[in-house]
Amino acid sequence: MVLKLYGSPVSTCTGRVVAVIEEIGLEYELVPVDLTTGEHKRPPHIERNPFGQIPALADGDLVLFESRVITRYLVRKYGKGSHLLKEHTPEEAAAVDQWIEVEVQHFNGPISTLVYQHLFLPVFYGGKTDEKVVAVEVEKLGKVLDVYEAKLSKSKFLAGDYYSLADLHHLTYGHYLLTTTPHASLFHSRPHVKAWWESIASRPASKKVTAALSFTS
Amino acid sequence: MVLKLYGSPVSTCTGRVVAVIEEIGLEYELVPVDLTTGEHKRPPHIERNPFGQIPALADGDLVLFESRVITRYLVRKYGKGSHLLKEHTPEEAAAVDQWIEVEVQHFNGPISTLVYQHLFLPVFYGGKTDEKVVAVEVEKLGKVLDVYEAKLSKSKFLAGDYYSLADLHHLTYGHYLLTTTPHASLFHSRPHVKAWWESIASRPASKKVTAALSFTS
Repeated sequence: MVLKLYGSPVSTCTGRVVAVIEEIGLEYELVPVDLTTGEHKRPPHIERNPFGQIPALADGDLVLFESRVITRYLVRKYGKGSHLLKEHTPEEAAAVDQWIEVEVQHFNGPISTLVYQHLFLPVFYGGKTDEKVVAVEVEKLGKVLDVYEAKLSKSKFLAGDYYSLADLHHLTYGHYLLTTTPHASLFHSRPHVKAWWESIASRPASKKVTAALSFTS
Repeated sequence: MVLKLYGSPVSTCTGRVVAVIEEIGLEYELVPVDLTTGEHKRPPHIERNPFGQIPALADGDLVLFESRVITRYLVRKYGKGSHLLKEHTPEEAAAVDQWIEVEVQHFNGPISTLVYQHLFLPVFYGGKTDEKVVAVEVEKLGKVLDVYEAKLSKSKFLAGDYYSLADLHHLTYGHYLLTTTPHASLFHSRPHVKAWWESIASRPASKKVTAALSFTS
């Protein structure tokens, strides 16, 4: 049974799931959902995700939405040999969960606003970047990355010395921030964050994902 | 070893952890962190949580922050017999994860803003409720609860016919919304949401938590 992933190759949340699929080496079919015509808000997609967002995954009869739910499921179901989750003991599981939740609660908010302001707003919606909003979010993201810098001075990756979902979940927004906004220095000025980012971005699976995250090719 | 929970009994995120502790029946010590003097932003608390928030948990040498990471850890470590997480198969685990993530991504934003506007802002900060903000968030929360109503017409709880962390995570903000704001009808006007809420709130563990979530006693 081939996995069906409903989404868009340029979407950060779709890309987050593709990154796991590529890490594990699964076969999948990307079924495009056209956001420009509102396809995500209508049946049949609204039946896959009642909040009308992408991506959604169908694995046989099982349908899931929310990218971070799908990534966790795929690792448990198909990626047991990997270190993407370490659920052998509650303590190891919590080390990964800790930084999965930090990404959700602290990193995702400011970085998604910055990418929206510099990329999606002007390119898709014909809007103008709001520099006041940008300044606030740059400061917020800087403070979050100060915490990352301290953590990454003690371990190569966020949960420990192994690449996990906690790191992988940063890939797609990190890529857009560094390649489409003027704020790459937020990562590059912090040496441990910079080295961490290079470890993530240089992985073969990551390169397959980021090659598709492009509006210029 | 008694668990040490650093937080505040009136905090929604501290209460979320206490709810799990009470469900499992664990011994714990609540170590107060005084937010009014900024104790959460200074050592030693900032060493427990580098983002300077409550709660944090110490279980021997293991220190964790983020309430939803702590709840997951406690269930895995001490609550294996419960149905709070069902991690026997990836499919069962995903059913709970699906709605844990919905609470984080869709429910928490509007309800926390409403509780802030009606409770924390006027009571703690001497501010005035912004009715325009309230109107926007009431509409958002209503749409989220429409999705819940549809789901809860098919199963008693969010993940299935069993009480799980996905339900429990709603307890503290739900309580404040229903008891301190004029928006209880958001829950009460939706019959399946109303019945679901009553199932959650009437649990002995829930009552111990909500008894402490009070500014009037």
